[in-house]
Amino acid sequence: MGDKELDFVERMLEGDRIALSRLITAVENRSRSLPDIVKRIHPHTGRSYIIGVTGPPGAGKSTLVDKLIVLFRKEGKKVGVVAVDPSSPFTGGAILGDRIRMQAHALDEGVFIRSLGSRGSHGGLSRATKEVVRLYDAFGMDYVVIETVGVGQTELDIMEVADTILVVLVPESGDSVQMMKAGLMEIGDIFIVNKADREGAQRLSAEIRAMFSINPREDGWQTPVILTHAGEDRGVEEIFEQIKSHRLHQLEGNSLKAKRERKREKELSGILSEVLQKRISEKLEDREFEKVLSSVKKGEIDPYEAVDIILSRIFQATKK
Amino acid sequence: MGDKELDFVERMLEGDRIALSRLITAVENRSRSLPDIVKRIHPHTGRSYIIGVTGPPGAGKSTLVDKLIVLFRKEGKKVGVVAVDPSSPFTGGAILGDRIRMQAHALDEGVFIRSLGSRGSHGGLSRATKEVVRLYDAFGMDYVVIETVGVGQTELDIMEVADTILVVLVPESGDSVQMMKAGLMEIGDIFIVNKADREGAQRLSAEIRAMFSINPREDGWQTPVILTHAGEDRGVEEIFEQIKSHRLHQLEGNSLKAKRERKREKELSGILSEVLQKRISEKLEDREFEKVLSSVKKGEIDPYEAVDIILSRIFQATKK
Repeated sequence: MGDKELDFVERMLEGDRIALSRLITAVENRSRSLPDIVKRIHPHTGRSYIIGVTGPPGAGKSTLVDKLIVLFRKEGKKVGVVAVDPSSPFTGGAILGDRIRMQAHALDEGVFIRSLGSRGSHGGLSRATKEVVRLYDAFGMDYVVIETVGVGQTELDIMEVADTILVVLVPESGDSVQMMKAGLMEIGDIFIVNKADREGAQRLSAEIRAMFSINPREDGWQTPVILTHAGEDRGVEEIFEQIKSHRLHQLEGNSLKAKRERKREKELSGILSEVLQKRISEKLEDREFEKVLSSVKKGEIDPYEAVDIILSRIFQATKK
Repeated sequence: MGDKELDFVERMLEGDRIALSRLITAVENRSRSLPDIVKRIHPHTGRSYIIGVTGPPGAGKSTLVDKLIVLFRKEGKKVGVVAVDPSSPFTGGAILGDRIRMQAHALDEGVFIRSLGSRGSHGGLSRATKEVVRLYDAFGMDYVVIETVGVGQTELDIMEVADTILVVLVPESGDSVQMMKAGLMEIGDIFIVNKADREGAQRLSAEIRAMFSINPREDGWQTPVILTHAGEDRGVEEIFEQIKSHRLHQLEGNSLKAKRERKREKELSGILSEVLQKRISEKLEDREFEKVLSSVKKGEIDPYEAVDIILSRIFQATKK
């Protein structure tokens, strides 16, 4: 690791916000020092409670997160927010809305907000988000909030890291079948029908409740459906109470530990494949494989044949 | 390979449609015989011209493809269609719309239509689609049409295999910024504004033209924007003509060869990582790694440390 980034880690662990910001940038840029950064901060992680906030665009997620921050701060808790937009190439808090939000909390040392966009692969974005969460965790945040825009596969991957997932919907979000499709019904721990003064809010919340009464959760958690109007502060305290209840429920049932173990296992295999991928592409640039690669490109041999050749050379053991 | 699937390959190569259908099912189910099937059919591939058709839901892609099939058949060309819907778990032509379409061409030996949905990972769906294309190719199809529903990352991955990509839009598809975001502007070779009698069709086509006059393509291809009304056959012949022009343009500039070489290289690294992934997860189940895995799950060691340990044991050579 470069001495500079090592310095940043030390300074970040001492509470230096600029160092934290630099490290997040290193994560965004998939710096070569990442493995060393993660190793160095690892002993300081595992203390933050991670909240995921997802739902369709325009559901009012950002406003809701802002109101939650105020409640966390009232209790003296520190909070880090990472807002992820896989469809946006913009990063580093460059999104207009986030600039405005950052200004509102700019003088508050207990709040840190950053945006991540998609520079490269979506798999990379999901990994980067998880590493930003680690940085916040090591920095000493009590709560880390991950806010994602959209409802695609990348967002579902990102949400895996959360201890409690809030799904924010609005009456016009569309019918229940659409939600099912997006996988939101399966991942949400707390459902929020925002902009509850609009027509259809009661119907939507009844639909969600009905679905959970037909398919109750295996872990015994009674999924709450909360009607809110975040712009007017209505319902936000109830969300905070339910987050605490869900945390307690998981601690009592020992499921938080099991969940985090599953997450760590999944993260390991993700990193393993990322590292392997990188090593493989390096290998393919070796002169050794020039001939195989050229035959594949010309269509002389099929890719499975080539894979056999390459793997038998890379791996110590012969294939199973 | 099972004797049965080997039989299917031989029968398929002799023109047996039922054998082709069985092999597509084997691809869908990610059969263990896949590498052998691909190896066996490889010498018979590389002749089909592959057309990708993409665009937002409801743009009329299926109707357009149906009309194109009629034109291909008029010239005596054989055509295979694979319709991919990543959001659907339904497969094997089980989608109602496709059943209807299949009936229309059911008695035509020169047409074969199948649907693929997402059973497992989206990466798997993209790989499966490419292998169905190979099967059609080996079966002797002159044209293979890949039709995707939606505009996400999976669809973009799938489109990589196409020689010519048609992007189908309708006036209500939304503004140009939205298109840019979805990456459609970058991948399309021919743009089609369907349902051209609707308001905004002229404006949309002018917008697309304007974008390409600002950012002309590096390969010199003049991207056509065609106004159509597929339901009434209007503009479909022009699409066919433009497909032929684009094919010729690529043949003359030698870019088709280069494109296919890039595709083969990309496919190789995809298969390589799929095979590696599988081998790694098998390895992780070995007793050898039990202790490392358990330490990671408990959070005792960080994932990068674990990756170092695992890879140093798996790989012959020490790390670079």
